Amino acid sequence: MYSLDLTKPDGRALTLYARHPLDPKIVAPSPFPEPLNASPHLRWHPLRGEWVTYAAYRQGRTFLPPPEYNPLGVTTDPAHPTEVPAGGWDVAVFDNRFPSLGGPDAEEPPELIVPSARAAGHCEVVVFTQDARGSLGGLTLAHIELLLQVWGDRTLRMVQRGDIAYVLPFENRGAEVGVTLHHPHGQIYAYPVVPPVPARMQQEAQRYYRGKGCGVLQDFIAGERHAGLRMLYEGAHAVAFVPVCARYPYEVWVATIEPVESFIQLTPDQRADLARALKTVLLKYDGLWQRPFPYLMAWYQAPTDGEPHPESHLHAQFYPPYRTRDRLKYLAGTEIAAGFFAMDALPEEKAGELQRVEIALE
Amino acid sequence: MYSLDLTKPDGRALTLYARHPLDPKIVAPSPFPEPLNASPHLRWHPLRGEWVTYAAYRQGRTFLPPPEYNPLGVTTDPAHPTEVPAGGWDVAVFDNRFPSLGGPDAEEPPELIVPSARAAGHCEVVVFTQDARGSLGGLTLAHIELLLQVWGDRTLRMVQRGDIAYVLPFENRGAEVGVTLHHPHGQIYAYPVVPPVPARMQQEAQRYYRGKGCGVLQDFIAGERHAGLRMLYEGAHAVAFVPVCARYPYEVWVATIEPVESFIQLTPDQRADLARALKTVLLKYDGLWQRPFPYLMAWYQAPTDGEPHPESHLHAQFYPPYRTRDRLKYLAGTEIAAGFFAMDALPEEKAGELQRVEIALE
Repeated sequence: MYSLDLTKPDGRALTLYARHPLDPKIVAPSPFPEPLNASPHLRWHPLRGEWVTYAAYRQGRTFLPPPEYNPLGVTTDPAHPTEVPAGGWDVAVFDNRFPSLGGPDAEEPPELIVPSARAAGHCEVVVFTQDARGSLGGLTLAHIELLLQVWGDRTLRMVQRGDIAYVLPFENRGAEVGVTLHHPHGQIYAYPVVPPVPARMQQEAQRYYRGKGCGVLQDFIAGERHAGLRMLYEGAHAVAFVPVCARYPYEVWVATIEPVESFIQLTPDQRADLARALKTVLLKYDGLWQRPFPYLMAWYQAPTDGEPHPESHLHAQFYPPYRTRDRLKYLAGTEIAAGFFAMDALPEEKAGELQRVEIALE
Repeated sequence: MYSLDLTKPDGRALTLYARHPLDPKIVAPSPFPEPLNASPHLRWHPLRGEWVTYAAYRQGRTFLPPPEYNPLGVTTDPAHPTEVPAGGWDVAVFDNRFPSLGGPDAEEPPELIVPSARAAGHCEVVVFTQDARGSLGGLTLAHIELLLQVWGDRTLRMVQRGDIAYVLPFENRGAEVGVTLHHPHGQIYAYPVVPPVPARMQQEAQRYYRGKGCGVLQDFIAGERHAGLRMLYEGAHAVAFVPVCARYPYEVWVATIEPVESFIQLTPDQRADLARALKTVLLKYDGLWQRPFPYLMAWYQAPTDGEPHPESHLHAQFYPPYRTRDRLKYLAGTEIAAGFFAMDALPEEKAGELQRVEIALE
């Protein structure tokens, strides 16, 4: 993997990644001439015991621009710079212009009736490809492998900063989940604390590991493979399946078979098979109704606190918003207010639908 | 408060509530001739440490029926029975025909690779008024007070069953949050376990109570009243405000000033003032953009485990889906995957918008 670190005119960082050497003379563009003026802050929510971040300037962020301007497409007209330059790169990562966390000159937090803090952390945008009309699932296996490597490099950089507790790469795909830019891209949130959902999962995984001496997801995967009912992909090193306890009708998990703490520790063989598992899911999703399938894809890794985490197990969880071809699953009373999910479809049925979608992986 | 307990032809319970005596000859209708055949089951989610409920028959549930048929309107044509009869009732409560929890003949749960269980519990529909075109905020204060009493009566009935750990009354309002029937109504979920969100809040409240000897929400309300900035209603016994740590742009909490464990313990004075606080919020919401304002309203109470809960404090949290007049707040990557909320508006600004909406309470 080749990479080139650049700085945008407004001070933000841009890294280009490629499978071939990159021209060192590439210059980083920015649609924004003025320096980033970010000052998000955290407020403590004492009833839920969690932090909430406030970044009031985010309301001005780019929203469904006219088709002739794509801020994630390569700059072709210097008079209208985008976020990424032309050149032979495959994946680009740059600092979010509207970060919910971090930013160069975060102000002191306001004095409030609850504890407040600077919103330390970091928010990045990951452009998956130069092809504005492409999709993650449409990329070659080699390109997806590169992306897995990029996620590892970004995670490593966050570990090395020393002030990041958790790194979450994710993709929101589709207008149904609020996506405003349709160029294939994801985001990375690097949090100053372990956020509530990974914290809860970590707690459960640690309890399981102490009791059984092995990982909860490792055992879960062994169970899914043995049951066989809900599998979508089973390779030498990676699997994809609809979990028996799915909370969303088309929920899918993608994981290595053996526990791996984070993208950093993936072996080349694991990475190659994980790319095959991931691409299988994405092609099945798009094949299901012969249209782009919206989802939230989140990759869970070990906390980046420098401690060993044998209980952690790198994996993706996909949360798609549809429950049938033309009905959305709304998160409402019981899900949002109680955190108690109610499913009107059995995971076995939904797995069957996805199993029957034929795909060509290569 | 007067009430009349009835049984529908399909075996489901219906209770009518009124401020005046009810005709005991009223007969309960049902749109469904055949008995309820519910068999939801729970599956354990070992990564999150929580139960998920599966009720596969729910896909057939009523979905935006044609305007001439309203299953929550009173039955006028015996050939097309609805869920509620004609008569002098103000509020009606009946067993959900498509329950996510409970049901009369719940089957044994399937054997799975994770623990499973019968989905014990109970799901009810609460019809707020006979007026299909009305709204909760449009009801008289006396009618809203009656509803608060009804929620208390339903909670008490669940306590008395002995197998319910938590009772959550809520209202999903508006197509934006997935509502399929627009007749003013809410739901009550009675859970066999304390669900994840109330469990977390309970844990935090207990920790606070042990440390400080008073309630976390009690102190929070004192702080909000002292700050004054975000208040929407301040009466002798109840308040409404945008919390300093709001996770949704127009989030509002409504609470008694003194801690009360549940609807059961409300004094008449508290109930009257809570009705005023609630109606204030609802009128301000609908007044803000001069159109019905969608929201999820959830009422948190103490667990119904028979233990004293001095740390609990009855209150409502409103989660509206809009962040501005024409932009929805989508819950995506950081909120759904990490549970870490990012706000692009300050609670103080949103409180100001709602404070400026003039209303007539009586």
